[in-house]
Amino acid sequence: MRKVYIVGIGMTKISRHFNKSLRELFAEASLKAIDDSGNIKPGAVVVGNMMSSSLQEQDDLGALLADNIGLRGSAALKVEAACGSGGFAVATGYTLVASGLYDIVLVGGVEKMTDYPTADTTKALAQAADAEYEVFYGASFPALNALLMRLYMERYGATREDMALWPVMMHDNSYHNPYAQLRFKTTIQHVISSPIIADPIRLLDSSPIGDGAAVVILASEEIAKKITDTPIEIAGVGLSTDSVDLATREDLLTARSIRLAAHKAYKMANVEPKYIDVAEVHDAFSINAMLVLEELGFAERGKAWKMLKEGRFRPGDKPTVNPSGGLKARGHPVGATGVYQVAEVAMQLRGDFPGVRVDKAEIGLAQNMGGVAVSTSVIILKR
Amino acid sequence: MRKVYIVGIGMTKISRHFNKSLRELFAEASLKAIDDSGNIKPGAVVVGNMMSSSLQEQDDLGALLADNIGLRGSAALKVEAACGSGGFAVATGYTLVASGLYDIVLVGGVEKMTDYPTADTTKALAQAADAEYEVFYGASFPALNALLMRLYMERYGATREDMALWPVMMHDNSYHNPYAQLRFKTTIQHVISSPIIADPIRLLDSSPIGDGAAVVILASEEIAKKITDTPIEIAGVGLSTDSVDLATREDLLTARSIRLAAHKAYKMANVEPKYIDVAEVHDAFSINAMLVLEELGFAERGKAWKMLKEGRFRPGDKPTVNPSGGLKARGHPVGATGVYQVAEVAMQLRGDFPGVRVDKAEIGLAQNMGGVAVSTSVIILKR
Repeated sequence: MRKVYIVGIGMTKISRHFNKSLRELFAEASLKAIDDSGNIKPGAVVVGNMMSSSLQEQDDLGALLADNIGLRGSAALKVEAACGSGGFAVATGYTLVASGLYDIVLVGGVEKMTDYPTADTTKALAQAADAEYEVFYGASFPALNALLMRLYMERYGATREDMALWPVMMHDNSYHNPYAQLRFKTTIQHVISSPIIADPIRLLDSSPIGDGAAVVILASEEIAKKITDTPIEIAGVGLSTDSVDLATREDLLTARSIRLAAHKAYKMANVEPKYIDVAEVHDAFSINAMLVLEELGFAERGKAWKMLKEGRFRPGDKPTVNPSGGLKARGHPVGATGVYQVAEVAMQLRGDFPGVRVDKAEIGLAQNMGGVAVSTSVIILKR
Repeated sequence: MRKVYIVGIGMTKISRHFNKSLRELFAEASLKAIDDSGNIKPGAVVVGNMMSSSLQEQDDLGALLADNIGLRGSAALKVEAACGSGGFAVATGYTLVASGLYDIVLVGGVEKMTDYPTADTTKALAQAADAEYEVFYGASFPALNALLMRLYMERYGATREDMALWPVMMHDNSYHNPYAQLRFKTTIQHVISSPIIADPIRLLDSSPIGDGAAVVILASEEIAKKITDTPIEIAGVGLSTDSVDLATREDLLTARSIRLAAHKAYKMANVEPKYIDVAEVHDAFSINAMLVLEELGFAERGKAWKMLKEGRFRPGDKPTVNPSGGLKARGHPVGATGVYQVAEVAMQLRGDFPGVRVDKAEIGLAQNMGGVAVSTSVIILKR
């Protein structure tokens, strides 16, 4: 297997970009990444995106976006795994280089969620759930996560205030991130008195709707070592899935796809959870963060909220989790999120992330997922 | 680069399957393929599909379909490149194995197009064109192809009757294919007097709307040689794209993405067009067949119709083109088509294709594309 490195990074700020189209957002991030790589020319483009078929009514998205950044003629495809599309796109780009088929691949996540009636966006988001077994019966995506949150609190004894510690920490972090959508601080009181979305999930437990694009450029070892002094190695790639519908799982609070993907990635990178300096993980709702921390091996099952109370996972701790502010506060342009995470972790390892920085980080992890821990990717990076 | 082999094949008949859902079609083809492989267990699933987001309102399709065939926990993702999704899915599966990340990968193309109002299906198909630059102005997908057909006939002197030779040949072939959607013969007179779809394209120039799924199981050399006496090697993979909109191309009749993808695939497989024994190519409309034959190097530019008149490309010729009946008559369940082609060519090389058979075929080619030659894959197989 050829080694694969990240040699270029570009992102747009996440926001309600009413004046920028899907292709403009992708181009902005791509041109930044190409510039960051020293202007190398990718032979292939992999796009992570969930909603272009539903909201923009546009397919063949890979070719469309590749052409728009001057790469007409290159290979191009779109990868879809709901909100996990970005991570699976990075994994696909990884195999395009690792296999030897391409030497330089541009992987971009992009999503344009605003500009549409909220009902359309909500419906598009619900397509991450099972259309026949869940959505047909009226289950929205927040409603499904609310079931998990209620059960978690009851089973493990976490209070509503305990669960609010996560969004408070995320807003503390995003406050310093110039790419973040929500750059304000919040408090436990503020979180637990914000409007109810699906009880017990409240507005400030939830990631916002936003637009954005993030791009990483991957290259073979030979090229990477030639063009940059700070190549970041993709040392582990773990992918796994679970049932889309929640009803057929053995236990609602066992997110098996995360555990399986993490196990694969750790093994491939030859590391353990305790070696991770910095992680960006998928916290679409506060409850997701608890499950992810536990399944990644950063906390024992049912105890992530206790570690949070002890002040763990904050800047200065190992691992520091979501220094970007996470989906909760950096934002969650769904199909783009997995690429943002990989880009942010890579910048932490390079030492040039412009927000909360993790000093001397050597090993980082990015965990992204579609649905309620349905399609999970875990990607481990090394300096 | 590790060598990659096809070790299992399964297909459903293409039809208007009013009694079978998307996941049922996928399961039928998958279980056949797994059975054909001697019951090996894939570690990853790649799904080629265009329309599930628009028609079935279902995302996270990879996980959904993997779970439904008993592969909960495996890696799974959907690849989208409009009508070229299937070919790009095979290419993605190829890199998953070639990179060493997985040893056994199930690649399935699936599309469920019937059961919906024709207006919905037509709109979903139009998403292969540029939503902002073409569809917004009322251009349907057949209308764009009609522009090309008119220009081809005028520039190269082909008559309406000459162009009808293609569908007549395709129906001759599909007549013998038990998986084909349209199993009847037709005549030049019948083609040119069938209803106009978008002048000069008529009904019998057009591929039908249908449902279907095709699956190939890919494996590393070590595994392939252990489990089958007839492993089929994926010897060449070429991918390329062009602008989605036709207006910005230098020449409407130069399908650059096909030429570039073919060049890559021939080079990688170390073959030339004249070595190809059997090919399955993307003939969504009669005009597509002409352009494809020319860009693949089977005919000189502007002369494919003359070779057709001379009786070339039929069973017995080298290459025999579309012994399945092609998109025209075998059918075109859009995101599945590229996998059908690879499956059919592999069966020709194994010697067990149940329709028109190409004797002693050693080298085969499958060419699939999204849009009007927007996203093209060319895959070369060797016995």
